[in-house]
Amino acid sequence: MAPGPTAATMRRGNEYPIPKTMQAWVLGGPEELALVEKPVPEPGPAEVLVRIDAIAVCATDIEIIRHGVPAMIDGELPFNKGFTPGHEYMGTVVKLGPTVDEFEIGDRVTVEVHAGCGRCQRCREGMYTSCLNYGYREKGHRANGFSTDGGFAQYAVNNINTLAHIPDEMSDAEATLIVTAGTAMYGLDVMGGVIAGEGVVVIGPGPIGLMGVGVAKALGASPVILTGTRDGRLEMGKQLGADEVVNVSREDPVEAVQRITRGRGVQYVLECSGAPNALNEAARMVNRGGRICLAAFPAEPVPVDLAYLVRNNIYVFGIRGEGKSATHRAAALMAQKRFDAKLIHTHSFPLAEVPTAIRYARERIEDAIKVVVQIRQN
Amino acid sequence: MAPGPTAATMRRGNEYPIPKTMQAWVLGGPEELALVEKPVPEPGPAEVLVRIDAIAVCATDIEIIRHGVPAMIDGELPFNKGFTPGHEYMGTVVKLGPTVDEFEIGDRVTVEVHAGCGRCQRCREGMYTSCLNYGYREKGHRANGFSTDGGFAQYAVNNINTLAHIPDEMSDAEATLIVTAGTAMYGLDVMGGVIAGEGVVVIGPGPIGLMGVGVAKALGASPVILTGTRDGRLEMGKQLGADEVVNVSREDPVEAVQRITRGRGVQYVLECSGAPNALNEAARMVNRGGRICLAAFPAEPVPVDLAYLVRNNIYVFGIRGEGKSATHRAAALMAQKRFDAKLIHTHSFPLAEVPTAIRYARERIEDAIKVVVQIRQN
Amino acid sequence: MAPGPTAATMRRGNEYPIPKTMQAWVLGGPEELALVEKPVPEPGPAEVLVRIDAIAVCATDIEIIRHGVPAMIDGELPFNKGFTPGHEYMGTVVKLGPTVDEFEIGDRVTVEVHAGCGRCQRCREGMYTSCLNYGYREKGHRANGFSTDGGFAQYAVNNINTLAHIPDEMSDAEATLIVTAGTAMYGLDVMGGVIAGEGVVVIGPGPIGLMGVGVAKALGASPVILTGTRDGRLEMGKQLGADEVVNVSREDPVEAVQRITRGRGVQYVLECSGAPNALNEAARMVNRGGRICLAAFPAEPVPVDLAYLVRNNIYVFGIRGEGKSATHRAAALMAQKRFDAKLIHTHSFPLAEVPTAIRYARERIEDAIKVVVQIRQN
Amino acid sequence: MAPGPTAATMRRGNEYPIPKTMQAWVLGGPEELALVEKPVPEPGPAEVLVRIDAIAVCATDIEIIRHGVPAMIDGELPFNKGFTPGHEYMGTVVKLGPTVDEFEIGDRVTVEVHAGCGRCQRCREGMYTSCLNYGYREKGHRANGFSTDGGFAQYAVNNINTLAHIPDEMSDAEATLIVTAGTAMYGLDVMGGVIAGEGVVVIGPGPIGLMGVGVAKALGASPVILTGTRDGRLEMGKQLGADEVVNVSREDPVEAVQRITRGRGVQYVLECSGAPNALNEAARMVNRGGRICLAAFPAEPVPVDLAYLVRNNIYVFGIRGEGKSATHRAAALMAQKRFDAKLIHTHSFPLAEVPTAIRYARERIEDAIKVVVQIRQN
Repeated sequence: MAPGPTAATMRRGNEYPIPKTMQAWVLGGPEELALVEKPVPEPGPAEVLVRIDAIAVCATDIEIIRHGVPAMIDGELPFNKGFTPGHEYMGTVVKLGPTVDEFEIGDRVTVEVHAGCGRCQRCREGMYTSCLNYGYREKGHRANGFSTDGGFAQYAVNNINTLAHIPDEMSDAEATLIVTAGTAMYGLDVMGGVIAGEGVVVIGPGPIGLMGVGVAKALGASPVILTGTRDGRLEMGKQLGADEVVNVSREDPVEAVQRITRGRGVQYVLECSGAPNALNEAARMVNRGGRICLAAFPAEPVPVDLAYLVRNNIYVFGIRGEGKSATHRAAALMAQKRFDAKLIHTHSFPLAEVPTAIRYARERIEDAIKVVVQIRQN
Repeated sequence: MAPGPTAATMRRGNEYPIPKTMQAWVLGGPEELALVEKPVPEPGPAEVLVRIDAIAVCATDIEIIRHGVPAMIDGELPFNKGFTPGHEYMGTVVKLGPTVDEFEIGDRVTVEVHAGCGRCQRCREGMYTSCLNYGYREKGHRANGFSTDGGFAQYAVNNINTLAHIPDEMSDAEATLIVTAGTAMYGLDVMGGVIAGEGVVVIGPGPIGLMGVGVAKALGASPVILTGTRDGRLEMGKQLGADEVVNVSREDPVEAVQRITRGRGVQYVLECSGAPNALNEAARMVNRGGRICLAAFPAEPVPVDLAYLVRNNIYVFGIRGEGKSATHRAAALMAQKRFDAKLIHTHSFPLAEVPTAIRYARERIEDAIKVVVQIRQN
Repeated sequence: MAPGPTAATMRRGNEYPIPKTMQAWVLGGPEELALVEKPVPEPGPAEVLVRIDAIAVCATDIEIIRHGVPAMIDGELPFNKGFTPGHEYMGTVVKLGPTVDEFEIGDRVTVEVHAGCGRCQRCREGMYTSCLNYGYREKGHRANGFSTDGGFAQYAVNNINTLAHIPDEMSDAEATLIVTAGTAMYGLDVMGGVIAGEGVVVIGPGPIGLMGVGVAKALGASPVILTGTRDGRLEMGKQLGADEVVNVSREDPVEAVQRITRGRGVQYVLECSGAPNALNEAARMVNRGGRICLAAFPAEPVPVDLAYLVRNNIYVFGIRGEGKSATHRAAALMAQKRFDAKLIHTHSFPLAEVPTAIRYARERIEDAIKVVVQIRQN
Repeated sequence: MAPGPTAATMRRGNEYPIPKTMQAWVLGGPEELALVEKPVPEPGPAEVLVRIDAIAVCATDIEIIRHGVPAMIDGELPFNKGFTPGHEYMGTVVKLGPTVDEFEIGDRVTVEVHAGCGRCQRCREGMYTSCLNYGYREKGHRANGFSTDGGFAQYAVNNINTLAHIPDEMSDAEATLIVTAGTAMYGLDVMGGVIAGEGVVVIGPGPIGLMGVGVAKALGASPVILTGTRDGRLEMGKQLGADEVVNVSREDPVEAVQRITRGRGVQYVLECSGAPNALNEAARMVNRGGRICLAAFPAEPVPVDLAYLVRNNIYVFGIRGEGKSATHRAAALMAQKRFDAKLIHTHSFPLAEVPTAIRYARERIEDAIKVVVQIRQN
């Protein structure tokens, strides 16, 4: 059973006993995970040690465990290096690295993935998820669960830039979902950010898509239209704020959007499906001059009608992760209970059962959406 | 021989005798152009009558004459309607419509294509080339040479929004090139606009690409790299300001850009070739978080590696025409002689020889780049 | 008694009988208003005739009636010209001008003030409230209630750019408040627009300030802090979403903001008081690099500590009206019931009692905030 | 005599002998400077040791030496702490801190002032000159010459974020001027950055103002108008690219701008004078919706007509230093020889004569503009 937030026995300001070693899942060869005893890591400057209380399974984790991380340091794959995957976690600050006064021992926090190097051109302009020193640990870059150890473990070190405070009344499980909402928020940000009263289509009711519905509606988008293939997911989208849902196995999504908007199309599409034709469809959902964010992608190159994009002055934004402090904004909306992210949390497992959790997520067993590993001991 | 600007016998403030009829090329069926006598049109509110002094042939003209205009009012093609094509023209204001005080009789002006309706959401936010009332003449939209009569004629009516003043010392022929530079400028604008010291690759040394080199260098981009297949064009790119040129028939353009930038890649790519693989190559020329503008496109859908765009947080901007008053900025740079646009003007013909001019442009006879029709009589 | 929206007996698509003349208040000399019979105006291209159903009194109306409009056509004051003031109105579209298909007869709409000329540089970039042809009616500019006839009357002509649809279930009186919320929204927009999770101080709980609280909270700002002198107004601010209120007669507002934010200050200040020291105080409420919007101003020049603004990289945005389609966004949030604008509607009067309505607003009789004139006859 | 750049005897890749101690000017009490022998500092992670080859005197140096630094850590003044002032320097990288591969030993570089902490909200969004951890050395913030040791010395440590490469053919003295041009560039950036063809007024022909003229013209602004009181400086402005200059002791500057622009006003004003009425005048120079950057300020609060700013939708941008990597852009323009910054370099002194150099700058002896201390020994 998931412990409620009030179950916390240790509070801010108290001391937390920190063991020398911890339990952590590490990646051997592809798809080989083992639970081992590892040293608890030490936070450096601008870092804290987080006791991990819960972590959600992301589709990217499954990719990493199977194939490695495409964007890691050239040629270096995470296999057989003692690497701990997992990046959608939350927990409690239990130790401060040198100079850290932004957080206190006992703070409940959730995390985002990327801490940029702070010295490349991208970081200098605030685009830290596109850090040009990606994977260069010595220069300060961290992408926990990607290029540095992640959260399928009892503890992790995090740069303070990757932390956001969460309110006491938010449960551990809900807090693991913030980073997913942050990705959706980042997508809306890069498309312009001012969306009250504008039409937004979200393609694909996976976790990012469903959180995208919640965020878009919270910011006043109207109408918010969700397209997908499964009625259960679409129904969940409605509960999260979708004004209209379209089951693409029953209606052509482009026609549906044109019907709903009386031929006007929408201003923004947040593409979260990775379907091969999604970009072409998105281009025909937006009005001339509209904008499309790609938060997912097909594995292989797909035919794209570029002429349509050019003739209609359409902008397409690929996004990496959750930049521009979007996670903080997503956390703020969730702290204000603007949408019920908990709806997408379908299953929970203890740390010992991470492989099962991953299997549920991968195979969508019992229609799993977000599978959360509850680590905190009460 | 092209008349110099000083040949003007009528000056600002004087009256210009305006005939009742004029010579104009009109489009019959596809590829059928005829020189006819047509009434000189009358400027309405916010419009002026322009005596056309020169007009350049654009690749889009050739498309329109052959296939019609894709984005015109639904279902309506320009054939056999007495339509006059041509949009890259300049001339002299000879009559003012009601309320016009922004221009005077005798002003020398160059034109851009789009006058938006001023009342749709796009026009309200300044994106008039993406006017949602495109082709809706009664609502005020004009796209001369696309949805309203253009410039292969002695006179045309223009909305004042489409006019830019040109200095006395600029020749008629040079002034016809401003709108092409304006398209390149718009491309740089939508990618961010602040490019001093940033690397810019221009793919494709056609007219827009070559003007893109000139504009990018004028704004301080560094290095400016031009890629293409023909050495003559690349050499012209050098004269216009390219720091480096790459003949893609001799060197892989992605490798060349990485070589020139010592592996860093560039910040911006202006794609002006329409080559099927150009977007995929552009994505590998920019650094993570880079930006690509598509000012050209392949006729058919092409395979695009969307995963690469998403993983590297790349933004892709399709552009229509020359929005955001970019033509005015291009005109300003050319008035300040920041680059020598005249280099791309290769051939001149009189009005009576428009079909020949178009043939030269289409078939690139004698390596024609910009073919200009000189209309002004001295 | 205010008629509810369901009292409408005429519906969309029906015909509305339009009389030849109407009742309208016109301005004689300063502070001289007379109810006269005037011809019902005729909508031109891009315009509609609106039957005014309700109008709120704005402080600016009181200024205009007393002093005239500072920014009207040079030297021309509205006195003794038959001018009808009033700009915060809503009503029903009863006649369409030529080419209008964006609205239908019977549509319920609210209005914003400014229709730009659509041809000056500002309108071309979307800043229509700063139209460079302000007051130039022939060029298409309208600022109803400022430079063209406004809404203390039974009918008015509006450019379609100034109209926003309102839902059936919103009352007439509430709909008159949208433009006030639009001004607040515009202020948040120009400061950056992305405010979820950011601290916002609103100075001055007048109508714009109170709507500013509602909009800021709706968009997820946190904390939203309202400062003022009257507890009743501050209490209303709490109901509209303020997390904290500060009575400046009991606590220094700068100290209060620093206390509430634990010394961090806020990101944004929306200054709606016009108090002489408000900008200096705002500068000390924001953190370094913060932004301040001035939606109000003192009548006379006041001492400003510019050194503080420069040293702390603070940006100050004066705003005119409600640009960037902010009224549409405000309408969208209110249609979604994100905050209860009705709270600030304190008094209602019929058309015949406009002078009384204005007196209530000016003298704040019975703590009047928004005084609404209900015009619609049932 | 100033050594030319070709005098360098050590080149990139070579080793540079680094002494244990160096000569450095240190600040005792206010206005007390002493040349002492100090240890050569050691570069940390992300830092390099720069052998200072030349440094220019800035008005801010004079302020600091006299009054201390307003924005340093609360309550802490730089007096009697062994602090070395000076921030407009350039030199040669002679030692790399850990992890540094962005620069090589022997690189010629110029500096900007601010290295942000990289972890506060401002740094995260790219506004590092407004770092919320200003003066907090342990968190990584440096503002050399302000809160950390500066350049009136033989060596200084710099964060790599504060360095820009300079070309071999640029002289030491010219390279010290880049940061001044960077401040002007930052001012143009924050006002929008896209200025080709737009009118720009620069108020005040001090070093920043003169560099502002050069940068604005290089980016294609037109007209560039410079106002000031001294004909010599205005003449220099013309050489740097001003289209028009106005001697305000002979003509009212607002009237002059309106005359030059035929009543239209300009889009941008870069205020570099700190004159008490400059903001009010600037507001009347811009057209409605125009933008003003304050790069200088009067010492005391001054009366400002805020009503004018609000009614005309004017934005005012205070700027701190030279953010947004503007120094890199300025360096790029100067490397491309777009304007002749050397014009403002009027005097040179050796390191031993820093007090004299400062006196020349402070008292404008022999109409000194930029006084450069040449430190490099040949």
